[in-house]
Amino acid sequence: VPKASGDGHAGARAGRVSRTRSGQDGEGPARGVTIAYLAERAGVSVPTVSKVINGRSDVSEETRRRVEAVVREYGYQRPARPDQRADLLELIFHELESPWALEIIRGVERVAGVQDVAVVLSELEGRRSPGRDWLAGALRRRPTGVISVFSELTEAQRSRLTARAIPFVTIDPTGEPIHETPSVGATNWSGGYAATRHLLELGHRRIAIISGPDLIPCCRARLDGYRAAMDAAGVPVDGLVHFGDLHVEEGVALGRELLAQPEPPTAIFAGNDLQALGVYEAAHQVGTRIPDELSVVGFDNLSVARWAVPRLTTIHQPLTEMASAATNLVLQLARGEAPAQTRIELATSLVVRDSTAPPRR
Amino acid sequence: VPKASGDGHAGARAGRVSRTRSGQDGEGPARGVTIAYLAERAGVSVPTVSKVINGRSDVSEETRRRVEAVVREYGYQRPARPDQRADLLELIFHELESPWALEIIRGVERVAGVQDVAVVLSELEGRRSPGRDWLAGALRRRPTGVISVFSELTEAQRSRLTARAIPFVTIDPTGEPIHETPSVGATNWSGGYAATRHLLELGHRRIAIISGPDLIPCCRARLDGYRAAMDAAGVPVDGLVHFGDLHVEEGVALGRELLAQPEPPTAIFAGNDLQALGVYEAAHQVGTRIPDELSVVGFDNLSVARWAVPRLTTIHQPLTEMASAATNLVLQLARGEAPAQTRIELATSLVVRDSTAPPRR
Repeated sequence: VPKASGDGHAGARAGRVSRTRSGQDGEGPARGVTIAYLAERAGVSVPTVSKVINGRSDVSEETRRRVEAVVREYGYQRPARPDQRADLLELIFHELESPWALEIIRGVERVAGVQDVAVVLSELEGRRSPGRDWLAGALRRRPTGVISVFSELTEAQRSRLTARAIPFVTIDPTGEPIHETPSVGATNWSGGYAATRHLLELGHRRIAIISGPDLIPCCRARLDGYRAAMDAAGVPVDGLVHFGDLHVEEGVALGRELLAQPEPPTAIFAGNDLQALGVYEAAHQVGTRIPDELSVVGFDNLSVARWAVPRLTTIHQPLTEMASAATNLVLQLARGEAPAQTRIELATSLVVRDSTAPPRR
Repeated sequence: VPKASGDGHAGARAGRVSRTRSGQDGEGPARGVTIAYLAERAGVSVPTVSKVINGRSDVSEETRRRVEAVVREYGYQRPARPDQRADLLELIFHELESPWALEIIRGVERVAGVQDVAVVLSELEGRRSPGRDWLAGALRRRPTGVISVFSELTEAQRSRLTARAIPFVTIDPTGEPIHETPSVGATNWSGGYAATRHLLELGHRRIAIISGPDLIPCCRARLDGYRAAMDAAGVPVDGLVHFGDLHVEEGVALGRELLAQPEPPTAIFAGNDLQALGVYEAAHQVGTRIPDELSVVGFDNLSVARWAVPRLTTIHQPLTEMASAATNLVLQLARGEAPAQTRIELATSLVVRDSTAPPRR
């Protein structure tokens, strides 16, 4: 039995032969499994296999499963379509609330534009995993690849994409750290470490952290970087670790709590720039001056960090570059190439601005 | 000669019959002009007409022009395609720099999601008009419609879309105010008036404006609203009108200039929220306190206006609603419906926050 694209990266095997390569070697169907062969193995007709592969809905659930199982077993290489419509890349966002999303979009557009791939944008309206509607639509569009941002495809969705040789990549993965899905993230642990060491070097000791939710790996990694830097400096963290959602409002609420303590922190490392802006507002409300009485460090380095008054010291997360890397990765997988790496972390870096200064005491 | 969709809104005639309607009346090709008829009129083959309508590039420039002219003359209704891929809507941005873009994307997604239309996003990287590449790609994707944001299609591009019965709508049009392209904007003049009257009512007289570029209609309308309110209050505007790009940096530069004057303004009405944030930074640099020594009003009411410290008083521009309205409009046109209005302006409103107060003198 011929086995197509058998070296596949689990979870995102890219079965499609690149047009150039298939044009050059000209081996044709012998190279991969044909639809007729798959139909025979699944005990269904050729049009039925074709329907499943093309994401049509007029196939019974049971037949669909059977065909998908056979496709998974034997693999399938979608033939080059010389007169196909332009290639589409599906970009799925958990939510489009934050300017954060815009940096990602720009990075994807940058690469997609050059490679002549159109970007289809979907928003999950805050859910961490796309629903059935999204999948049905995406399969009908027969995309070249799928990029999910800060959200995870379900096991079933991954399986259906894999069965259609549609590769997928996650930017800033939210699930299990040891995952099989190709992904692009940032060095969050190092970023947390760098932010904390900057504050320690300025002379701070009571450095509070407002971490994002503990179960999200990027947030946990930042927190662990903070802990490591505090440990290395021999500074205890008791009572200084707090958790909150990555939004401005949470920064205001937790900032107010922290500043109302009998012995408030002299510095706050926020979970991201938006939380840091919330801390600005909290400080303003209680009359605490930044950086004279309170140092604040953010994470992400969004435009708003530059626009804040005083300008926010933060950890630069190369979101645009991450998005470009993810786009390149998914397009490589779609061409059937084997990328050197399928789990990439780009470097973060400290950007010192005007919101940090030595403590007054 | 049968003439299809003859009531068309010039510039975006939507010739496509809605699937429901064509299914109901069942008149078939007799209802509209057939491709065969168009081929005869143009003196070319049926496949050639088909190629032009479907945006293929393997047609000579001369033939393409001839076919397009015939299509314009006689109209053409694209037949319903029962098994077509999901509908695509092209959304074109002048640039994706500002959080402004995100509000628009969310408004488009909201309507597109409900109507099961996928959104393809393109960025023009700062150009005010999409280039040839965009058009070629868009035509290959055979979109249901096109929405351009703060950017204008060229005459030639409009003509090619019209020839293919692809309607287009502009959000926040930048060109000639008396345009034929269907558009959705905001009541910029009233917004400028409301911002200025708010400052006048607080007792300000030296109210400076930093307007966006004079040639962009939305900016000019805001400036005229400011002038009208000042005139109505009998307050001269000599030396108080300034111009600058709608970015933070420009707000910093012009803010510094204004505050360095021998008799600085007691209030500044900025061209948008980003410029206003620039004025915040300028005030911070020279030690001017907001709102005690300087009142600031923005325009747009982006999230950053809420996040600024102090929170920014601004004119709410309903960007998300504008985007939703534009999406509904283009989908109506695509279904061949005649919308009640094709040039819509949604209301702006004053949002008073913490950056405005009575002048000290």
